[in-house]
Amino acid sequence: MENQEKYTALANRIYDLDGEVYKCVGSSLGRTFTGKRENTIRTLSMIMYTKPDSHLLRSELALISNMARTIKDKEARSRMMTEYDEILKELESLPNVFGSTDIVDKERVALNLAANREKMSPDDHMVICISRTQGSAGNDIGFELADSLKINYYDVEIFDQVLKRLEAEKDNLKDTENFTDFNKYDRKEHKDIKTRLREFNRYHGLKKSDAVFFNMSDLICELAQKEDCIIMGRCADVILKNNHIPHISLFISAPFSVRAKHIMDVRNMSLAQATRFLKKMDKQHRKYYEFYTGEKWGKPENYDLCINSASYGIKETIDVIQRMLNQQA
Amino acid sequence: MENQEKYTALANRIYDLDGEVYKCVGSSLGRTFTGKRENTIRTLSMIMYTKPDSHLLRSELALISNMARTIKDKEARSRMMTEYDEILKELESLPNVFGSTDIVDKERVALNLAANREKMSPDDHMVICISRTQGSAGNDIGFELADSLKINYYDVEIFDQVLKRLEAEKDNLKDTENFTDFNKYDRKEHKDIKTRLREFNRYHGLKKSDAVFFNMSDLICELAQKEDCIIMGRCADVILKNNHIPHISLFISAPFSVRAKHIMDVRNMSLAQATRFLKKMDKQHRKYYEFYTGEKWGKPENYDLCINSASYGIKETIDVIQRMLNQQA
Repeated sequence: MENQEKYTALANRIYDLDGEVYKCVGSSLGRTFTGKRENTIRTLSMIMYTKPDSHLLRSELALISNMARTIKDKEARSRMMTEYDEILKELESLPNVFGSTDIVDKERVALNLAANREKMSPDDHMVICISRTQGSAGNDIGFELADSLKINYYDVEIFDQVLKRLEAEKDNLKDTENFTDFNKYDRKEHKDIKTRLREFNRYHGLKKSDAVFFNMSDLICELAQKEDCIIMGRCADVILKNNHIPHISLFISAPFSVRAKHIMDVRNMSLAQATRFLKKMDKQHRKYYEFYTGEKWGKPENYDLCINSASYGIKETIDVIQRMLNQQA
Repeated sequence: MENQEKYTALANRIYDLDGEVYKCVGSSLGRTFTGKRENTIRTLSMIMYTKPDSHLLRSELALISNMARTIKDKEARSRMMTEYDEILKELESLPNVFGSTDIVDKERVALNLAANREKMSPDDHMVICISRTQGSAGNDIGFELADSLKINYYDVEIFDQVLKRLEAEKDNLKDTENFTDFNKYDRKEHKDIKTRLREFNRYHGLKKSDAVFFNMSDLICELAQKEDCIIMGRCADVILKNNHIPHISLFISAPFSVRAKHIMDVRNMSLAQATRFLKKMDKQHRKYYEFYTGEKWGKPENYDLCINSASYGIKETIDVIQRMLNQQA
C-alpha cells in the first residue's frame, strides 16, 4: 500500500506539471490531460502498476516535456524541466515501471569489449571481427582501421599463407580450399582414389574443407588470445563466441545497387557482370556462414553492430567504428 | 610508362622491407616473399596495376607489418613501420590501387547527419529515426536518449494524440488506426454503408489507414524541419529520405530468445505467450514496413547503423549511439 500512495503522489505531480506547462506555453494543442483531476489521477496511478501499459505513461510524459522545452521564459522552463527530471527519477526508482527491466544477453555482454572495456582483464585483447558483403568496401575499411589502430590485420589470404607455412613442415598440406572456391555441394571436382584415401587419412575422415575450417578455427582462437587484431570474415565472431573469447563483431554492408557500382569501378565490369558476380558471391557467403554457424547470414541481431558503409564512405566508417570503440584521441 | 617505373620502385621497397623485417624478427614463419628477387618484383608490379587483385598486395603488406610490429628493438621497429607507412601512402596515391575507390551512396551521405555534421546548414536539425523490433527495449533506449540529448521524443502514442487534436478542430477524426491494429489484409471489421461513404469522402477515396499514414508523413516532415528530435518507428527514415530531409536512421534489435525473455519480464507472460506475441508483432511490423516502403524490413543496408541491444544493455546502447553521434562531452 505504500507504493499505492507513492503512485498517487506522483500522479498528482504529473497532473500539476501538465497544468503549469500549459499555462506557460499556451500551446494550441492544449493540455495533455483534459479530463477531470480525480479521474486523471486514478488513470495515471493505474498505468503505473500495470506494467504492459507503462509505456503509455512515458508517452504522456514525453508530450509534457516536449511542450515544456518550447517555453520561452528561461527561468520557468528550467523550473519545469527540473520538476520533470525529478518525476522521471522517482518513476524509474519504482518497481515494475518502464526502463526498470534491462535487455541483456549476459554471455554476449561479457564478451563484448566495446560494452565492457573496464571489466576486461589485462590479458584480454581488442579483437575486432568484421563480416562484410562483397563490394561494400569492408576489406578496405578493415585494413585501414587496423592501420589506424596499429594492430594486426588478418584476411583469408593471410590465413592461407600462415596455415600453409605451418603445415608445410608436417606433410605439405596446401590450403587451396579458398573461400572463393567454397561450395559444399559442388561435385564437379573428381579426385582419383589415391588422393581421396590420402586425404581421408590426413583429415581423420573429415571433408578437406571441414578440416581446413577447424585448422583455421584453432588459429583464430590462438591469435585472439595473443594479440589485438582485426579478423576479416571466416565466421571468426562465431568461433570466438563458442570459445568464450572476448571480441567485437561488426557487419559491414551497403545497398546492392551501390555495391554493384563499386564492383564495376574496381573490377572494370559491366552492370550485368557486376550483378551476376555479386549474386554469386552473396550466395557463397550465405552458404558458408549458414553451414558453419547454423545461423542466418546478415541478420543484424547476429552482430554487435552493423554499419552501412554507403551512408558514410570508407574514411567516416572507420571513424564511426573508432568513436564506437572509444579509442579515439 | 611513368607509372610503370613507380610500380617497380615501390615493389623494390616492399621486397627490401620484407627482407629487413625478417632479419629483425627471425620469425619461424620466414619471409613473406620466398621467391627470387626479380620474379617477386615483377609479380608485385603486376598486381599493382591489376585492380581486381590489388587486395592481394594489401594482404602481403599486412603480413609484413604484422611481423614488423613484433620486433622487440624499439628503434628498428619504428624505422620499419615508418617505411611501411610511407610505402602505403605512395600506394594509395597511385591510380587504381586498393582504397582509391570509395563506396558512397551520395544521396544518403548528403542526408546522414552523423557522417556529415560540418557540412550541414544551421537550419538542419539532429533528427534520429529509430526502428526497432518488439522486445528489444528500443523504446526505452529512444526515450532515454532523447532525455540525455535534451531533445523531443515522438512515438506512436504521441503522434496519435497530436494528430487527434489537430484533426479535432476539423471534423472530429479519431485516429484509432493504431500501429498495433494495423493489418492491411484484415477484413474482420464490418462497417455499415453510411460509415463507409462518410470515410470515402473524408479520405478522398483513400483507405483510412493510408490517409492516416499520409497525415503522419506530413507531420513527421514538419517536425524534422522544425526541431531536433527522436522519432520512433512509423517508417520515418523512409519518409524523410523521400523528402530529402537530413536525418540518421538506426535499427535496434536483439536475438529472438533475448527479446522473448524481455517480454516475459515486462509483460508477465509465459515463454509460449511471449513467443506467440513476438511472432505476431514481427509479422505486423514487417507488413507495415514493406507495404509503405517496398523494402525488406530489418535488412542492415536499409539503415545507417544497426545495434544489437542485447550486446550492450540499455545504458551502454545509448552511450554507443552518443559516441557515434560524437555528441558526448
